[in-house]
This record gives sequence, C-alpha cells and structure tokens, in this order.
Amino acid sequence: MPELRKDYILNRWVIIASERAQRPDQFKQELPTIKKQDNCPFCPGNEHLTPNEISRREKNGKWYLRVIPNKFAAVTSEGNGIIQTHNQFYTFGNAFGKHEIIVETADKTKQLWDLSAEQVTELFEVYNERITSLWKEKGINYAQVFKNHDKAAGTSIMHSHSQIIAYDLVPQAVQDEVAASKKFPSCPYCDIILKEKNSARRCFENKNCIAFTPYASRFPFEIWIFPKKHSTTLDTTENMKDLAELLLQALKKLKTIHAPYNYMLHYSPFQENLHCHIEVLPRLTTWAGFEYSGTIINPVSPEDAAKFYRGEK
Amino acid sequence: MPELRKDYILNRWVIIASERAQRPDQFKQELPTIKKQDNCPFCPGNEHLTPNEISRREKNGKWYLRVIPNKFAAVTSEGNGIIQTHNQFYTFGNAFGKHEIIVETADKTKQLWDLSAEQVTELFEVYNERITSLWKEKGINYAQVFKNHDKAAGTSIMHSHSQIIAYDLVPQAVQDEVAASKKFPSCPYCDIILKEKNSARRCFENKNCIAFTPYASRFPFEIWIFPKKHSTTLDTTENMKDLAELLLQALKKLKTIHAPYNYMLHYSPFQENLHCHIEVLPRLTTWAGFEYSGTIINPVSPEDAAKFYRGEK
Repeated sequence: MPELRKDYILNRWVIIASERAQRPDQFKQELPTIKKQDNCPFCPGNEHLTPNEISRREKNGKWYLRVIPNKFAAVTSEGNGIIQTHNQFYTFGNAFGKHEIIVETADKTKQLWDLSAEQVTELFEVYNERITSLWKEKGINYAQVFKNHDKAAGTSIMHSHSQIIAYDLVPQAVQDEVAASKKFPSCPYCDIILKEKNSARRCFENKNCIAFTPYASRFPFEIWIFPKKHSTTLDTTENMKDLAELLLQALKKLKTIHAPYNYMLHYSPFQENLHCHIEVLPRLTTWAGFEYSGTIINPVSPEDAAKFYRGEK
Repeated sequence: MPELRKDYILNRWVIIASERAQRPDQFKQELPTIKKQDNCPFCPGNEHLTPNEISRREKNGKWYLRVIPNKFAAVTSEGNGIIQTHNQFYTFGNAFGKHEIIVETADKTKQLWDLSAEQVTELFEVYNERITSLWKEKGINYAQVFKNHDKAAGTSIMHSHSQIIAYDLVPQAVQDEVAASKKFPSCPYCDIILKEKNSARRCFENKNCIAFTPYASRFPFEIWIFPKKHSTTLDTTENMKDLAELLLQALKKLKTIHAPYNYMLHYSPFQENLHCHIEVLPRLTTWAGFEYSGTIINPVSPEDAAKFYRGEK
C-alpha cells in the first residue's frame, strides 16, 4: 500500500509508492548523450575562453582545479541589490550577485565519481574558501554551492564542474530548514542523525560523518550526508575529509546506474544555527503536474534505496 | 541584466535571465519519441485492460471520453487516512484516496491540442463532475486535476489523458495560495487580473476568462488562465466553455514548438475562497540544483512569452 510521509521537520509531503517500484538496475540510464564540445571552455588550453580566473590549484605548473566566473551568469554584480515593490503585486530587483564555476578536474574524461577522496576533499576546501570569500562581499547573503551532473539534472556541459551562486537572498529551502529547526529546543538534525544511525535508512558512516536516505525522500535514491557533531559550516578539515569520503562512496553507487544527479550544500545563514549538510538528488524520474502542485510521488522507498547504497540489493 | 522577481503573493522567487534567451523556435522539441504501445490500455477494443470503468461519454454507441481507475494508483482507498507521528520526526499514514484517469479521446492519433473547443469544454464538465463526486467521499479533502503531456512532463503514455488524485491532503501549492490570499482584504487575484489585463503579459481573453503569463513565471512560456469574475470552482457552464477555449488557444501555440507540458486546476478547498484557475507549465528546460534549493531561473521573460502567445514573435 502506498505510504504518505512528511519530512522530518518541514511541511513537505511525499507518497512512497514503491508498489510501482523497480529494482535499481531497472533505473539504469543510457550513458550520457551530451555531445562533446570541440572547444570545451573547461579544458586545459582553452583558458582564454574563460577570462578573469578567480583561483586555481596547480601541481608541476599545471592546474588541476580552477574557479572561473560563469559566462552565462544568472546573477551579476552590476546594479544593486535593492528590491522594490510596485502596485503591491510586482516585487523585483536586479538579480544581484556572483555566479562561479568550479572546474573539478583538468581531465575531461573523468567525472566527479572517478576522482580520489583526496581530490574531492580538496574540492570541499575550495567550496569553503569561496563561501568564506563571497560571504564577505557587500550585498551577499548566501553562497549556494551546487552540482548538476548530466542532462537530466540540468547541465549541458559534461566536463565535470560545480557551481556557486552567491546572492542577496537565502535560498527558500535553507530558509525553511532554519525556520523549522527553530521550533525545536535544540538542533532537530542532531536528534534525527541519532535516530537514523539505527534505522533501515542508514547507508554508511565514518568517524565524523553519516549518510542516510531521508525518511520522506523526494527522489529515488535521494541521500543526505551530515557531520555527526553539530556544525553550521564546512568548518573543519576533518569534516570536509569525511564528508567528501561519504559523498564519493554514494556517487560511486550512482555511477553503477549512470544516474544524473544534483547536490546542494546547505550551510547555515549568518547568525543562524542550521546543521550543515549535503543533499544528493538523483534525477531518475520526472516531476509531473501532481508534484508541481506540491505532493511528490517517489517510486522507491528510502529503505530500499539504503539497501542499494549498502550493496544489499 | 537578469531580474529577480517575486510571485504576486507567494514567497516564491524567480530569476528572469532572458539574456540567455532563445527565440521560441529554438525551444522547439523533437516530436514525441515515446514508442507506441501495441496494447494501449486507453484504446477502444482494450477496455477489458481497465476494469471498473467509472463513467463514459458516448455517441452512436461508441465512447469518446472515458473515466477509469489508474491501474498504478499513487493513492488507494484501502486502509484509512489516519496520520500518525512517531518519535516526533516520523509522520506517516497510508496514502489514502482515489486516483483516476480521464481518457480524453478514443482517437490515439489526436492530442488534447488537436481537439475542438466543444470537446475540451466537455472535458472540463467531466473534471467538474468528478471533483463534485469525489469531494463528497469520506476522507477526501481535495481532488487535484492535472495533465502530463509527453515524456519530459512525466508521462510514458502518449494516448491523450488527464489524471485526478483525490486524497486527504490539500496540495501545498493550493494551501500556499489560500494562505497568501487571506492576507489581503479581498481576493488578490481579482486585482491581479485587472492589472494583467493592461500589462505586456496579457495573452488573450474572451467574455468570461483571461490568459496571461505570470509576472514571476517559473517556466518558459508558463501561462495562467482565470475566470475574470471571482469563482472558487469550475462552477458555471459559461466559465467552463471560456476556460476551455483559452486553454486550447494556448495549447495550439505550444503545439507549434512540440512543447511537453503539465497543467493543474487549482480550485478552492472547502470553506475557503481561492480564485479558481489553471496553471500551464511547459517543460522545455530542466530544473537543476539551484532550483531545488528554491530559487528558479527562467530564461524566457513572461513579456516575451506573451508575445509568442499573441503571435508577435
């Protein structure tokens, strides 16, 4: 019988309709069909196509990770971030901020799930550097780090990369998590982690972090990764290393079914106390009219998804 | 410069990044690639594949519109709709309700946009009949009518059909609209209609209804259709006829670019006063990580989209 579930703390409802379920390999996708660009702007040798490099990491004089402005920026630092309302219904401003790309490797034949734990850890260090730097800029309230892998997850460039949009808003999902957390006497995610550690949704953990499939998963094989000890940011080297390790472990499983995916880093906005975490959203199904009215149907239970991650299914 | 816009009354933010914009014909999709089913369960002659027919409309002894239960129901009338919470974080119930399919035509070679205004009006009459009937059933709080056209809009069956999921929740999007409407002394949508009637976003209107592209459109070519006079449901024959006419006019434009789309009917929940309307969401782009954190990027401004609907572009 399909089950209705609410998110731990948000007013977000999901129908787990696993009677429609398929085995993980039935979700296996075709290999990426995005055609290779002859002049990939993220490849070594084409650095002139992306001017104003923000930073890079090098070895033996060659870069292996590079931060650049997004040429097709969704936000810009022109104008100002002033938001006005006309006629009580029209609220607008220019989309103020900075939009950056992090090229995760110089090797276009490798995806993030092919990199080493050390490389992914270094990527997290760069996320942290950029967040810290962008946050200090005038008018920036949040730097949203995210990754889109493959066409069904909304990207058209296969050369492995992440993005950061730093802007004057706080993303709605982060605002919702902050507001819902405040209704509890202490951080609810700290409690949720303790409960999920002993649940059928636990996937894997290491010294500092834990990965589990959330109780009201919206997407087949959705997985969240938290530092076990309350942290509002990617603060410590240990957390970054352990988060990277678990993320890589999850992605290596997703690689077996060629899953397109997004992930987002949710850290705490300024002067708030949100438990920092990563949400990984595999994109194996398509939201339809019912989902856009606000109730999500997920054909894979998080308990089955956890078996997939643990290698039991 | 990209513009940040808020929905008329909801706390929903969109970046209109039309500098990335394309002309409407650049969004033109391939023709549907869903393979034809040899044994299409919605075709005449295969009625035995879908037992327990709910209703039909016939002419000369042959049906031309048929309501049947969804064989792969997301909600079921087994069990009960009781929702429980364990451990303060786990809230669940069985997904209680009824899930129905409306086969819109017996002719599998026709899509909704190929039908006549009379046929679409009749479809609205059937929506209204089913809502009225389902609403009376014990435990049902809302009957969400929606349509998914083509694979990118979340369906795998091309034989033209709509769906209804009647369940014990009110969809979050409808709840949000109700709550936001209550903050105004009178229906805000009645005012919005008057403003949009004279805006660059007006697409078309007839005696009783109006179609416009919303100020903070989330999707390229998103279009909303409202009865001009405040109505909480699809109440009158005139409204249904005029809504159907404008919907068809919009869909015929979407046909020119083979657009996959969803639409949802938002009527007012019991004892509320929401202005009934239809939201049409063309699915020409893919939401990515940033959108799933809550800020949506739309590469087509609603002003440009309105030109497309008015045939000026």
